[in-house]
Amino acid sequence: MNFRMIVYILGNMLRLEGLLMAVPAALAFYYGEGPALKAFLATLAVCVLTGTAMESREPENKRIYGREGFVVVALSWIMMSVFGALPFYLSGAIEGVMNCFFETVSGFTTTGATILSDIEALPLSILFWRSFTHWVGGMGILVFMLAVLPMGDDRSMYLMRAEAPGPVVSKLVPKVKSTAKLLYTIYIVLTLVEMTLLFFGGMPLFDSVVNAFSTAGTGGFAIKNASIAAYDSVYFEYVITVFMLLFGVNFNLYYLLLIRDFKNALRNEELRYYAAIVIGSILLITANIYRFYPTLESAFRHAAFQVAAITSTTGFATANFELWPEFSRTLIFCLTILGACGGSTAGGLKVSRFIILLKMAAREVRHIIHPRSVNLIKLDGYKVEEDVTHGVTGYIIVYILLLLGSFILVSLDNFDFTTSLTSVVTCLSNVGPGLGMVGPEDNFGFFSGFSKFVLCMDMLLGRLEIFPIILLFAPPVWRKSYM
Amino acid sequence: MNFRMIVYILGNMLRLEGLLMAVPAALAFYYGEGPALKAFLATLAVCVLTGTAMESREPENKRIYGREGFVVVALSWIMMSVFGALPFYLSGAIEGVMNCFFETVSGFTTTGATILSDIEALPLSILFWRSFTHWVGGMGILVFMLAVLPMGDDRSMYLMRAEAPGPVVSKLVPKVKSTAKLLYTIYIVLTLVEMTLLFFGGMPLFDSVVNAFSTAGTGGFAIKNASIAAYDSVYFEYVITVFMLLFGVNFNLYYLLLIRDFKNALRNEELRYYAAIVIGSILLITANIYRFYPTLESAFRHAAFQVAAITSTTGFATANFELWPEFSRTLIFCLTILGACGGSTAGGLKVSRFIILLKMAAREVRHIIHPRSVNLIKLDGYKVEEDVTHGVTGYIIVYILLLLGSFILVSLDNFDFTTSLTSVVTCLSNVGPGLGMVGPEDNFGFFSGFSKFVLCMDMLLGRLEIFPIILLFAPPVWRKSYM
Repeated sequence: MNFRMIVYILGNMLRLEGLLMAVPAALAFYYGEGPALKAFLATLAVCVLTGTAMESREPENKRIYGREGFVVVALSWIMMSVFGALPFYLSGAIEGVMNCFFETVSGFTTTGATILSDIEALPLSILFWRSFTHWVGGMGILVFMLAVLPMGDDRSMYLMRAEAPGPVVSKLVPKVKSTAKLLYTIYIVLTLVEMTLLFFGGMPLFDSVVNAFSTAGTGGFAIKNASIAAYDSVYFEYVITVFMLLFGVNFNLYYLLLIRDFKNALRNEELRYYAAIVIGSILLITANIYRFYPTLESAFRHAAFQVAAITSTTGFATANFELWPEFSRTLIFCLTILGACGGSTAGGLKVSRFIILLKMAAREVRHIIHPRSVNLIKLDGYKVEEDVTHGVTGYIIVYILLLLGSFILVSLDNFDFTTSLTSVVTCLSNVGPGLGMVGPEDNFGFFSGFSKFVLCMDMLLGRLEIFPIILLFAPPVWRKSYM
Repeated sequence: MNFRMIVYILGNMLRLEGLLMAVPAALAFYYGEGPALKAFLATLAVCVLTGTAMESREPENKRIYGREGFVVVALSWIMMSVFGALPFYLSGAIEGVMNCFFETVSGFTTTGATILSDIEALPLSILFWRSFTHWVGGMGILVFMLAVLPMGDDRSMYLMRAEAPGPVVSKLVPKVKSTAKLLYTIYIVLTLVEMTLLFFGGMPLFDSVVNAFSTAGTGGFAIKNASIAAYDSVYFEYVITVFMLLFGVNFNLYYLLLIRDFKNALRNEELRYYAAIVIGSILLITANIYRFYPTLESAFRHAAFQVAAITSTTGFATANFELWPEFSRTLIFCLTILGACGGSTAGGLKVSRFIILLKMAAREVRHIIHPRSVNLIKLDGYKVEEDVTHGVTGYIIVYILLLLGSFILVSLDNFDFTTSLTSVVTCLSNVGPGLGMVGPEDNFGFFSGFSKFVLCMDMLLGRLEIFPIILLFAPPVWRKSYM
């Protein structure tokens, strides 16, 4: 384990986080929010000083491998969440250390579950930071670092692989640095397009910016207590629906569109499954709820927004699906588990993993019928290697164990079955709302500190696709040398 | 596909089922229950005549393979349930065709979920048949057939493998016929021991017999509305607790004990995990509920009974765990999914499958740390073949898909989240009680016919370990020739 290199990378990241504080600090100054300004400046100083100290000793051996990649990713997200919580705590905007940490973890992991009951009471600069963590966490701060920092290709791939969501990670272009830059460019352009559409549709500038951040990261922190429903605008609802779905698509596809490789883009199985699942769910829910709405259009719009919000794991709301019939609620629960495409900013199990699981099940059935025949699994026309199927299997097993384990721990709080179970699932999938006491109009403030901690771990496990966090607790990882 | 042989075997089984009716018919005659007597005699006649007609043409080619094995098992269980429902329907004891079918499927699959609200109103001979289906379904009627009918070893192994629960099936002795006989002998002896202990402890003879049947098959149909709590006897509770746990143990172990191979019996990992899970759950639940009971002993006794009832997937009750704190309820939910040991009469995922899944997850973590090292999975000191891990993976994937799919379908009835979800889980695991409206003091009568049908399929899928039923719907299985 190359400890020096780990500390060096972490120092780099912390300094970067400190510099990010300059934006909300400027806003706090502009809006004249004194306590918030002090909090942001203090955090900025702490992060930059600590970060600079950590990276002062540049290691001679800069080589890192898979396990260092995982450890760096896990530690960096925990570190970012701890320091990112400081503005909430120092400004007095959120009470309690655990609440500040929960809100920040929920932000960076793009979950969007909040412990706040009155969001509108917060200073604007704090609200900005809250939504900004979504945007930073959506594409990944490590990917950002890879895009801007000088770093050799051989080691950075490990970092990218450990942070990027989905079972398969491919470099768009031969160099990791260029890939990271491309990803961030697409991300920024899409975010700007949404901002512009919202702003010119009549949304205040501040709201357009933070709502676009929350959409882009598929986070879901709103700045109104009634979430997106507060704007009461059909136009905003459709724009945000479309963009939530767009941010749930594998970013590789946007690159393929950019280089006009339409053939490969259309061949993408994950996209077709994703589209089928989204359209199917919207139609089923529309049929299930249309009698509760004045027009078919409004039933369709509410179904589409909520399906997009849950599938893309954003978690915005324009309707309280707690009031819908059980069939719609159950579909929404299943979409919460599933999530959107790999290589997007969305959480959840990922559609591509789901496809591989489906094909593994079909393979098993074929194997029973024809025990001796060769049984390949193909995705997009290419053979899926055993390494990948093993990875997906390991993932789903650990996912279920974590889900049931967290469920048992959270049930110690003695809230009802639905609340305990769906709060765990929604945090593991980085969605935000669940059912029962954690529905779209509720918040997570009532949980005990212990449960909040468990749910924070679930959010981090979900965002980092489980294994980086698990590896932190595997003793062999910490041995100085190996193999 | 050897259709003639399939019809021949099914005919054999149906005749056997008809002959089984003689026992409740005799009881109905003894108790003077006229309508029940007529119903049993009519069913006897129908089964024997149809069965004899089906097996009248002995096929020349008696060869069957894996897929025929699966199809025979699936069809035979459906056939047994349809004909087994006739006494309920013809005697007028249970109203409605779907209700009769549900009760019979619940019986044969050893689930023990009932649609009856007043069990004690039923004629005794009907109650006997109801519990007797548990005993027949527990070890499997096919295994029984293998034990008594002349059949070559090469083909019968496929039947046994398709019906027996758990990821690995081993013959105790070289011949399948002898293995089946041995299994049934152990089964009968254990049942008789329990009967005797209950009878000499003061339970009426009839009750001793049917309760022993329900325990042995890990079924859970009681003949009192208050289940085992009705006897209000500490002695009965402990005896039944112990026997529920014993019937959840792999029967291979009893054979090893019989031939005094203690070394291999103790080396069994599944038994050790099973014991650890049972003891751990009992202690945790005792600690969680002891303040609700007058003495520590009674808290322990109720925890132990309920844990044994759920883990062994019997589903008897002496306490309404719906009133316990959420932590205990959540543990019980997790035990419902898990079930007991493979090769026992219990349902659920099976402890051995759980162990293999755990080891696969650990293998994946090791693989991430040391990508190039060889990673074997061992059980009881032997290497687990890739065939078995693939089988377990396929099983868990299809299990989850079925669980969520059934959950969505049952939610159309618009009952609450907890009720819909736990009714599906408890049926898939062949346990009986769930949470919400299907708790230990409730019944399944309120579901729509459609939901009852879905739950019937879940019970059959669970008892037959999914794939036999799935294969019925795979077109290639029905092609006349293959390979």
